[in-house]
Amino acid sequence: MNDDIIVAIATSRLEAAISIIRLSGKDCIAFVQSFFTGQIKNKESHTITYGYIKDDQKRIDEVLVNIYRGHRTFTGEEMVEINCHGGVFITQKVLNLCLKKGARMAEHGEFSKRAFLNGRIDLSQAEAISDLITAKNDYATELALKGIQGNISHFIEDLREDLIKIITQIEVNIDYPEYEDVEELTADSLLPKSQLLKEKMNHIIESSQNVHLLKDGISTVIIGKPNVGKSSLLNALLNEDKAIVTDIAGTTRDIVEGTIRLDNIILNMIDTAGIRETNDIVENIGVNKSKELIHKADLVLLVLDSSSELTKEDYELIELSQDTNRIIVMNKKDQGIKYELDGIFISAKDNEIESLINEIKKMFELGKITAGQEDILANARQIQLLEKARQSLENAIEAMENNVPTDLIVTDLYESWENLKEILGERAKEDLLDELFKRFCIGK
Amino acid sequence: MNDDIIVAIATSRLEAAISIIRLSGKDCIAFVQSFFTGQIKNKESHTITYGYIKDDQKRIDEVLVNIYRGHRTFTGEEMVEINCHGGVFITQKVLNLCLKKGARMAEHGEFSKRAFLNGRIDLSQAEAISDLITAKNDYATELALKGIQGNISHFIEDLREDLIKIITQIEVNIDYPEYEDVEELTADSLLPKSQLLKEKMNHIIESSQNVHLLKDGISTVIIGKPNVGKSSLLNALLNEDKAIVTDIAGTTRDIVEGTIRLDNIILNMIDTAGIRETNDIVENIGVNKSKELIHKADLVLLVLDSSSELTKEDYELIELSQDTNRIIVMNKKDQGIKYELDGIFISAKDNEIESLINEIKKMFELGKITAGQEDILANARQIQLLEKARQSLENAIEAMENNVPTDLIVTDLYESWENLKEILGERAKEDLLDELFKRFCIGK
Repeated sequence: MNDDIIVAIATSRLEAAISIIRLSGKDCIAFVQSFFTGQIKNKESHTITYGYIKDDQKRIDEVLVNIYRGHRTFTGEEMVEINCHGGVFITQKVLNLCLKKGARMAEHGEFSKRAFLNGRIDLSQAEAISDLITAKNDYATELALKGIQGNISHFIEDLREDLIKIITQIEVNIDYPEYEDVEELTADSLLPKSQLLKEKMNHIIESSQNVHLLKDGISTVIIGKPNVGKSSLLNALLNEDKAIVTDIAGTTRDIVEGTIRLDNIILNMIDTAGIRETNDIVENIGVNKSKELIHKADLVLLVLDSSSELTKEDYELIELSQDTNRIIVMNKKDQGIKYELDGIFISAKDNEIESLINEIKKMFELGKITAGQEDILANARQIQLLEKARQSLENAIEAMENNVPTDLIVTDLYESWENLKEILGERAKEDLLDELFKRFCIGK
Repeated sequence: MNDDIIVAIATSRLEAAISIIRLSGKDCIAFVQSFFTGQIKNKESHTITYGYIKDDQKRIDEVLVNIYRGHRTFTGEEMVEINCHGGVFITQKVLNLCLKKGARMAEHGEFSKRAFLNGRIDLSQAEAISDLITAKNDYATELALKGIQGNISHFIEDLREDLIKIITQIEVNIDYPEYEDVEELTADSLLPKSQLLKEKMNHIIESSQNVHLLKDGISTVIIGKPNVGKSSLLNALLNEDKAIVTDIAGTTRDIVEGTIRLDNIILNMIDTAGIRETNDIVENIGVNKSKELIHKADLVLLVLDSSSELTKEDYELIELSQDTNRIIVMNKKDQGIKYELDGIFISAKDNEIESLINEIKKMFELGKITAGQEDILANARQIQLLEKARQSLENAIEAMENNVPTDLIVTDLYESWENLKEILGERAKEDLLDELFKRFCIGK
């Protein structure tokens, strides 16, 4: 079914020393041999061959060709990687030749999808590959690498193992009802076993809850009436940025104004231009969209001026943001302190914001979570499925407690089991797969 | 002298499926072995090994490692390429580990420089590699690929061969003056041989003269008084653009406003904002900078309005641009033709600009030059050196004609020979080399 040869540029499309054109599919080595001067047809797997890519008699590029035979390749299919000169035009020329010769342009993530369909990786591993590529800090890379190595698969398998034991025990009882009656069965072992399993699930869900904050960053909104020093605070935070990697167009979503790195914490500053650029700030902030923005944010920094009395506008903003994850930031402490609220005093102008940074770190308790410690899920899809699995398990537990007939209990347990399977992609429908792999890089 | 191990990211620094970290230097396979879980120390050259990059016990990335032993490598040294996951952060982490373990960050072009210093390539081939990476059309890629294969080296060697024969003949005569006297020597064979060689040089210089127009594009300025349709013309030209590669920030120099591709011709539109954005255009254009811009351009498109009489401003622009490589473009022919000058009638608004495009193609006679036909030099440095070589040869010829003593003639011929050598980098001084290779990609 996947017999066609797919091709893509696996490196990014900017001028560089080298670029890689990746091919996968049955007999793709023979395919490349048809327009490559080096001898690869009879070469062993995992070897590199020098030569020219040529279109009929015309040489197109001088390249090195890597070949991968058999099923122990990334996709589980025969693969070739052409290492070209890394020019934008020349790389495109070699790609065009591959297409002209009959290869098909790979869709986003299609190499990974084939790896998944060929059983080389499960869905959590595929997601981890994508996560590793988009990782922006140590935590995210460590978590992703553990995922690639099958960490999620392992602990999900453990849960399924526990679950299948419970199911088996009931099924045995259904098939051979003479052994025990239901009441005894649930009271003696099924119920405690199920509750223990639920605890395990709880623990994983809880640990995974804040993962996205570490992986993807904390969406942060700065609000405050005009002239309280919101821009100064933003600049002071930017000064603290210890980023080794600068932001590159296309890697942040359009609502994100900028990314600030504080050690291993990433603050994604949400663009609240609409809120800030009006004079009648409270009226504006009252509109639904701005309200929504504030309530959706992981962190709201409400900036007040400590050096002058609070105004009606300040009070309105305090009220508006009271149900959010908010830190009240009293700025301009260098110019005096006229009041004291439950919050942090800073002087953004003088870069005195350490107390605020400590408060942010404390708030997210990020020191506590490390990729090495826990069984952690990688994304919302996985968490949601585990929550569903837990829900079904809870239903089963409730049924056990109410002495519902065992075959009904089993239905819930099977439902739970299916949700666990889906985390690893074993029940995932084709369209879900398409949706998932489309988010991957081309060439991956 | 080059015993240290250099390292660089050889792919571009944007998210992609794969990125390559390249190392070169003595024992760099053993070096990488020290932080790689796969077994490469005893593997054969040109093989690929799977494993993890690790920092002490901590795994950093899952990679494939290509090794290249002996001297038949790109740099002529032992080399390793680590194929990482192509995330910006993860790639940087692997690079940082290499640096931490003792490799040194490669300078721009340092891999190519080592290849040159180790005698793997000459300077014209190194330049061709860089040219291939920056190539933006078929012509440039073909020319560069021929350069990589040693085309320039070959015909320069041929010239040197001719020259050395002439020199030898004279030297023999100096050492054994009994054989012939100078007059006879020059008249009989030296002079015609030298003149023939000069003709060869002339031919190469002439053919190479327009190469940069094909390779790098034709710097083009559109001028005209307000409202004659300069912007419409620019848009019409952009509509003709058959580019398969979009322009990417950083690949064009800052004065270039945009690049238009017409078949294999590239027009680099020079930003004349300063000229266009003023009402008193003639006064403005009179200032030196604008004048210089027009006279430096490879092509000036002077736009006039065909539907209304010429004004004083038009006449001033006609005069100002008369010594330039100019095409007079009479726009708005759809609205009427009130006069006729030696130029092209178009209607930019209706995209009727074919006659102009044909005129541009004709003007640069680009059809005539193809990469395959000729012995062509690749850049201004090479042309300048061949011109110097020709100048010295001319001096020698003049000396021969004036019966100057042979030892003085030989000095000129040696000078010519040295200049030819320098084209291939054989006499290039260290600082020239540094300057040259700095223009290369990192990792190349």
